[in-house]
Amino acid sequence: MFSGAQFSLYPMSDDFVDIILGALDSLDPYRDRLRVETDPVSTLLVGSPDIVLAALRDVFVTAAAGGVHCALTATLSRGCPGEADDPICAGGPGRPPDRSLADRVQDAVDAVAAATPVGRPVDAQLSVYPLGAEQHMDEIYGCIDFLKRSAVFAGPKHFCTRLSGDAGPVFAAVQEAFTRFGAPDGHLAVDLTVSANSPSTRRPAAPSGA
Amino acid sequence: MFSGAQFSLYPMSDDFVDIILGALDSLDPYRDRLRVETDPVSTLLVGSPDIVLAALRDVFVTAAAGGVHCALTATLSRGCPGEADDPICAGGPGRPPDRSLADRVQDAVDAVAAATPVGRPVDAQLSVYPLGAEQHMDEIYGCIDFLKRSAVFAGPKHFCTRLSGDAGPVFAAVQEAFTRFGAPDGHLAVDLTVSANSPSTRRPAAPSGA
Repeated sequence: MFSGAQFSLYPMSDDFVDIILGALDSLDPYRDRLRVETDPVSTLLVGSPDIVLAALRDVFVTAAAGGVHCALTATLSRGCPGEADDPICAGGPGRPPDRSLADRVQDAVDAVAAATPVGRPVDAQLSVYPLGAEQHMDEIYGCIDFLKRSAVFAGPKHFCTRLSGDAGPVFAAVQEAFTRFGAPDGHLAVDLTVSANSPSTRRPAAPSGA
Repeated sequence: MFSGAQFSLYPMSDDFVDIILGALDSLDPYRDRLRVETDPVSTLLVGSPDIVLAALRDVFVTAAAGGVHCALTATLSRGCPGEADDPICAGGPGRPPDRSLADRVQDAVDAVAAATPVGRPVDAQLSVYPLGAEQHMDEIYGCIDFLKRSAVFAGPKHFCTRLSGDAGPVFAAVQEAFTRFGAPDGHLAVDLTVSANSPSTRRPAAPSGA
């Protein structure tokens, strides 16, 4: 099943080019398991969901390490009927076809609880879009139930769900939302925003990121 | 039908707070027709699609006017079954229920051709997610056909379609994708990224935005 992401990294700094270039070095350990293509608006990662999410986490944590306010946005997609499959996407985690929605919620909660912290607090929000199904809201509500029960839930919002916590379990939660819901090999997209070092979270009166 | 967006504005500058605050003043002419709520990660706009898109365009054009590399990302949504309707969303453009897909493609092309330029070149990419329909790819392919025939088409990408041109017709194309495809009052989401003043588009060797 074809899977991957288009992501963009936004350091709110005059030094944004150097911060982006330094962060993209974090892709190096994954390059044999990812197809990477950059254009002026975003970078494409094609690979299995676990490798794509690990790479996104490491890029973002590296960019944010210097304390600059940074954001990462990503469009994740799997199973799009319009995309030819690619062997580089094989071998990652998939949704077991025989697990009920309630079981998958619990599996996802457990996976986030087992995720290794990396020492970088982040705020995030995501939307999950299971496509090609008439009862798409059942899977969305299941995913929201999982996120609410996870250790990184920060609150509901219109059109998305807020997460907050260490980047390790936050990106693990995104991976669970991306792989554990929707049809087993069906078309599903995730719209993700991650933010770190925002002045808004230090001084509530100052706007940031929006 | 409930409609709106969560958007974030990212000026790649040490002065990002002032640039964001200045750009948010562009919402003022629309505030009687929008509900606006800001948190540390994004700003919510609830209103009819034409007002939401005009507000996003004006915020982004204002932020980019000083020449700083800026990006805007937005999650647009309409018709979500989980959202109670709001009178502030009424009165905007909708998809006529009696127009064929081919007619809607032509309507959208014509609307972009008639859009007023605002004098600010931008690059953009978007994904359209018609939810709750088994034949969702028909509407996606129709929307891609419209974008390819529009004056602002810049090329295909995995998971999204690239646009480039004046911000006026580019945001008009996003509005058409958001309102003209999917079921007439159905659930549809758009994942949008807009970029301006990127060093990548001036010097091809320099990365930017990703």
